[in-house]
Amino acid sequence: MPRTRSALPSPAGPVRLTPDARTALRPAAVTVDGGFWHDRRATNAGVSLPQGPDLLESAGNLHNLRLAAGTAEGGFQGAYPFVDTDVYKWLEAASWHLARDTGEESDEALAADVARIIALVAAAQQPDGYLNTWFQLVKGGERYQDLRWGHELYCAGHLIQAAVAHHRSTGRPELLDVARKFADHIDSVFGLPGSGRPLDGIDGHPEVETALVELYRETGERRYLDLAGYFVDRHGHGLLGGEAYCQDRVPLRAATNVEGHAVRQLYLLAAAADLAAETGDAELRAAGERLWHAMTTTKTHLTGGLGAHHDREDFGDPFELPNERAYCETCAAIASVQWSWRMALLTGEARYSDLIERTLYNGFLAGVSLDGERWLYVNPLQVRDGHTDTGGDQSARRTRWFRCACCPPNVMRLLASLEHYLASADEQGLQIHQFVTGRYATDRVRVRAETDYPWHGTIAFTVEESPSDGPWTLSLRIPAWCREFRVRCGEETYDSQADDGWLRLSRTWAPGDRVLLELTMEPRLTAADPRVDAVRGCVAIERGPLVHCLEQVDHPGGGLDDIVLDTSRPLAVKHRPDLLGGVTTVVAAGRRRRLPDRGWWPYSPARGVPAEPEGEPVELTAIPYHVWANREDGSMRVWLPTS
Amino acid sequence: MPRTRSALPSPAGPVRLTPDARTALRPAAVTVDGGFWHDRRATNAGVSLPQGPDLLESAGNLHNLRLAAGTAEGGFQGAYPFVDTDVYKWLEAASWHLARDTGEESDEALAADVARIIALVAAAQQPDGYLNTWFQLVKGGERYQDLRWGHELYCAGHLIQAAVAHHRSTGRPELLDVARKFADHIDSVFGLPGSGRPLDGIDGHPEVETALVELYRETGERRYLDLAGYFVDRHGHGLLGGEAYCQDRVPLRAATNVEGHAVRQLYLLAAAADLAAETGDAELRAAGERLWHAMTTTKTHLTGGLGAHHDREDFGDPFELPNERAYCETCAAIASVQWSWRMALLTGEARYSDLIERTLYNGFLAGVSLDGERWLYVNPLQVRDGHTDTGGDQSARRTRWFRCACCPPNVMRLLASLEHYLASADEQGLQIHQFVTGRYATDRVRVRAETDYPWHGTIAFTVEESPSDGPWTLSLRIPAWCREFRVRCGEETYDSQADDGWLRLSRTWAPGDRVLLELTMEPRLTAADPRVDAVRGCVAIERGPLVHCLEQVDHPGGGLDDIVLDTSRPLAVKHRPDLLGGVTTVVAAGRRRRLPDRGWWPYSPARGVPAEPEGEPVELTAIPYHVWANREDGSMRVWLPTS
Repeated sequence: MPRTRSALPSPAGPVRLTPDARTALRPAAVTVDGGFWHDRRATNAGVSLPQGPDLLESAGNLHNLRLAAGTAEGGFQGAYPFVDTDVYKWLEAASWHLARDTGEESDEALAADVARIIALVAAAQQPDGYLNTWFQLVKGGERYQDLRWGHELYCAGHLIQAAVAHHRSTGRPELLDVARKFADHIDSVFGLPGSGRPLDGIDGHPEVETALVELYRETGERRYLDLAGYFVDRHGHGLLGGEAYCQDRVPLRAATNVEGHAVRQLYLLAAAADLAAETGDAELRAAGERLWHAMTTTKTHLTGGLGAHHDREDFGDPFELPNERAYCETCAAIASVQWSWRMALLTGEARYSDLIERTLYNGFLAGVSLDGERWLYVNPLQVRDGHTDTGGDQSARRTRWFRCACCPPNVMRLLASLEHYLASADEQGLQIHQFVTGRYATDRVRVRAETDYPWHGTIAFTVEESPSDGPWTLSLRIPAWCREFRVRCGEETYDSQADDGWLRLSRTWAPGDRVLLELTMEPRLTAADPRVDAVRGCVAIERGPLVHCLEQVDHPGGGLDDIVLDTSRPLAVKHRPDLLGGVTTVVAAGRRRRLPDRGWWPYSPARGVPAEPEGEPVELTAIPYHVWANREDGSMRVWLPTS
Repeated sequence: MPRTRSALPSPAGPVRLTPDARTALRPAAVTVDGGFWHDRRATNAGVSLPQGPDLLESAGNLHNLRLAAGTAEGGFQGAYPFVDTDVYKWLEAASWHLARDTGEESDEALAADVARIIALVAAAQQPDGYLNTWFQLVKGGERYQDLRWGHELYCAGHLIQAAVAHHRSTGRPELLDVARKFADHIDSVFGLPGSGRPLDGIDGHPEVETALVELYRETGERRYLDLAGYFVDRHGHGLLGGEAYCQDRVPLRAATNVEGHAVRQLYLLAAAADLAAETGDAELRAAGERLWHAMTTTKTHLTGGLGAHHDREDFGDPFELPNERAYCETCAAIASVQWSWRMALLTGEARYSDLIERTLYNGFLAGVSLDGERWLYVNPLQVRDGHTDTGGDQSARRTRWFRCACCPPNVMRLLASLEHYLASADEQGLQIHQFVTGRYATDRVRVRAETDYPWHGTIAFTVEESPSDGPWTLSLRIPAWCREFRVRCGEETYDSQADDGWLRLSRTWAPGDRVLLELTMEPRLTAADPRVDAVRGCVAIERGPLVHCLEQVDHPGGGLDDIVLDTSRPLAVKHRPDLLGGVTTVVAAGRRRRLPDRGWWPYSPARGVPAEPEGEPVELTAIPYHVWANREDGSMRVWLPTS
């Protein structure tokens, strides 16, 4: 059951709760105008987003829309039935960016591109609302015959999300009209036996569910919420043959752990959280809490990355968390943020935003290069010495664009809408989930923050607007990684928060009041649960919210796989303005093993293993994981052996 | 360069060297008439082989042949272009079995099945020799347009190997005629630019190469050897786009490690060894030696299993040897035996047969159930507690037959021809590579052996025939795993062999002379090279040539992933005639971890990890790996944490 029920309006953003939503928290409005994420978003807005239209043109996505509209000739381009979603996700990303209404000339060009591409989408739609260029062009118009792999509803979902973003950001109806028409078509086709709809089915790739909830939120049409609920609950009943891959092995309400294709699982869970929020469905909420706990305790990499298997992009088994074969698709990190944010709003619990922070700064951000032009689809925690890259989308090397280009525009849309995931409000006041330089606001209060986070742990808050008629609570999430902190608030100092991760400061605030939060940022060594076999005998270096790693390029004279960390020597912090756009590194002491010759067989009697001679000392430079693979190719390690 | 050149004739078997072959050793004739392998081969002959025709019928393979011959109606059955090879491998297996000429009634039925199926194959062949039902039926007869995935030459290879086996075993020409006609067709199509052949190409899946060498050996037609050499050397030049998967990234002569699809790599290397044997090509021999060393030192699992990745069935990177996701395809183990045997003959070095022994008793034999009716395609070294099996061919559960049924008939053909891989001869005498109950013979000497190996380490040899005109050498391979042994030979005792793994006993032998070899079979704990990240902090239990593992069913009251081995307590040997058809187990002491509650996040400060409370003691029963998965489903582990 929700702890509070607020009638505060939700600001524009990917999740706009209805006034009836039964959640603990509601999104607050944030503007980011400086610091770490501002810079990354500037690259997104200045490089990644503007390159979208040309990339979509050269990959054939826009050509397919023209073909479907009958305004071009030729053949379908692209290898997958879901290539339309690259267009939709880019439209969504651009729309969130345009919501900021900067008035800059470049944004006018972007708005023109958006309008042009929306017109292509509208023209490709069939009279009854159906829209999928693959099925219209390649499959001879055959619809809903291959729900397991066809991705038709998945594509509809991304179209709907783009349309909501566009309408919510600009107030313009063009794309929303297209989306509603398609949603109405889907609503006329799918339903339970006896519902009068011809087809009882689900899409193998969940996505339409959470989109339909948002369409309900945008339009007020209850039908869309009901349709989302129907789809969520029809998963797990064998309609697609019962595969975990399609989220069809077990219903969410009965599931005990996340499973199958990671992105599919996470999008479905985000929709379940949305439904719990809008309907008060306690069983769905409990399923979300149960599965989130199972996921974080048994199937989450240190970076927040999710998905252990390349094969079928699967979560894998509990504690199966490989390093070099960590799949950790960039899209899964994004889906994890989407789900966790919905759970944070639903429950008010800080741990969800702890995972969001870890994911944003590590498993997610590694997905895009510093220059905003190259991408990682998978995000391993190790690249071995002697790695032979097999190329393709799942390469451990950054790529300009992918055959399956799901990740790049997904990164763009999360970066463009990032402010939405940073703070919340309830009747008591404002909750700061993530620390940025900018302004956090509810309809009654506004707080300015200045910080060099994550490089430094100090965040200075200044109250800019506050009602004079009584107290309210400024709640600061004290990150789970943080072992010591201090808050100065006027004459008072705090250094411990409630057990639930929130430090709550309740008073009658006045404009100009200041709060200084200081999180200690000592580098630390992290160990894993002993059931994580892949990292037994290893530790990782972390600092603040950042996971660090070694890259070959910083360690000439040998590989990384024979390096041992000396845990008896202290870690040092070294800020390197020259390196990778300016990063703080952690310097550690290690040595290179000198391995005895074992002949042709690498296994030998455990009791007769010759003692290793003391190896050559080597200074280790651990860079933040999110900037790896921005220099020359080479090996990389997050987890370091200690003996 | 070869060390000796022998004019001894090679007995029937998969590798029949020509008299001109420049190898150190030549296969000797062995009969197996008791003991471990005799029992397994009896199941192969009595259960697996006779079930083949019905399985090939129900899976549609024989139907496809009838369709191609125009004697049946309907559509192609099967999911892959290489389904014909299931038929060919079964024919090869049955042919090797029939070579033993037992005169038993069941073998007459088998011979009738073989004749019937060969007639189907012959009828399906096209007038110019081409034969592939997929391309004839599904692809409208389009040939050699998809060499990357089409498997046409791969299929030809298995047809040729079956034909050679049939001709060599029975003297009958029917299948050999079909194979020659297809080989002649291929020879008319493929060749270097300027050769007059229309097509310069290779098959994405090597296999035809070693088959063509054997066809040369069987027919004396040099063209086939040359064609094999052409194919081997055209790999690695980008004819198929340069993928490691297709063995097309780098030529063998320049390669520094095995890579890409494991079975493809190993079949190609077997052919390279064949070519080195028949042509004296020193560079190919050196490539084989170099790549074998690289493979064993960096890419071989403890079981002899090969191939780290499910995705693309790839070898993976050096020291990337995961447990639960070990691919270790049964076919790769078979291919490894084929390659290593050719290298053993070429070089005379015992280490190749060390790997063969390890592979046969572990990574290979686990591929078939004790009852001969169910199979494993992949052979992981761990199945986790809470494993969700995704089913399909790559399941960690035994399956009756596969959609891609490459492994079962491959197991059948290796078991049916196993005697071929056990001993060799040279001018000096007889070399015993593997220990079985039966007879080992060259054209001049015969030795009988009795043993309960691998359950006991005693092998009793009796000379049955020996020339009286002078000395010869009985060479015994002392396994690399064996730390102590004793040989009694008449009045003399030996307990050390040459550095090269051979114990050589040279004398003038007389019928009735006895040699008693006693290998100590103490169970032992084995550790891995520290670069094998997957098993850091773990040991494995081995005994003799057998890798052992824990299975859930023997350890009620908890899972396997929280078990820690107590290495301070002795290992005990317990023979269990009641268990799994009679196996020797190793009993060890362990405890179950009691893990502290870490909340929702399984990673924590390395220096602040709470000490684990002493866990509950548990007796561990380690069964031989090759009999795992013959009881109820559950977790399994080879590598055990020690702290």
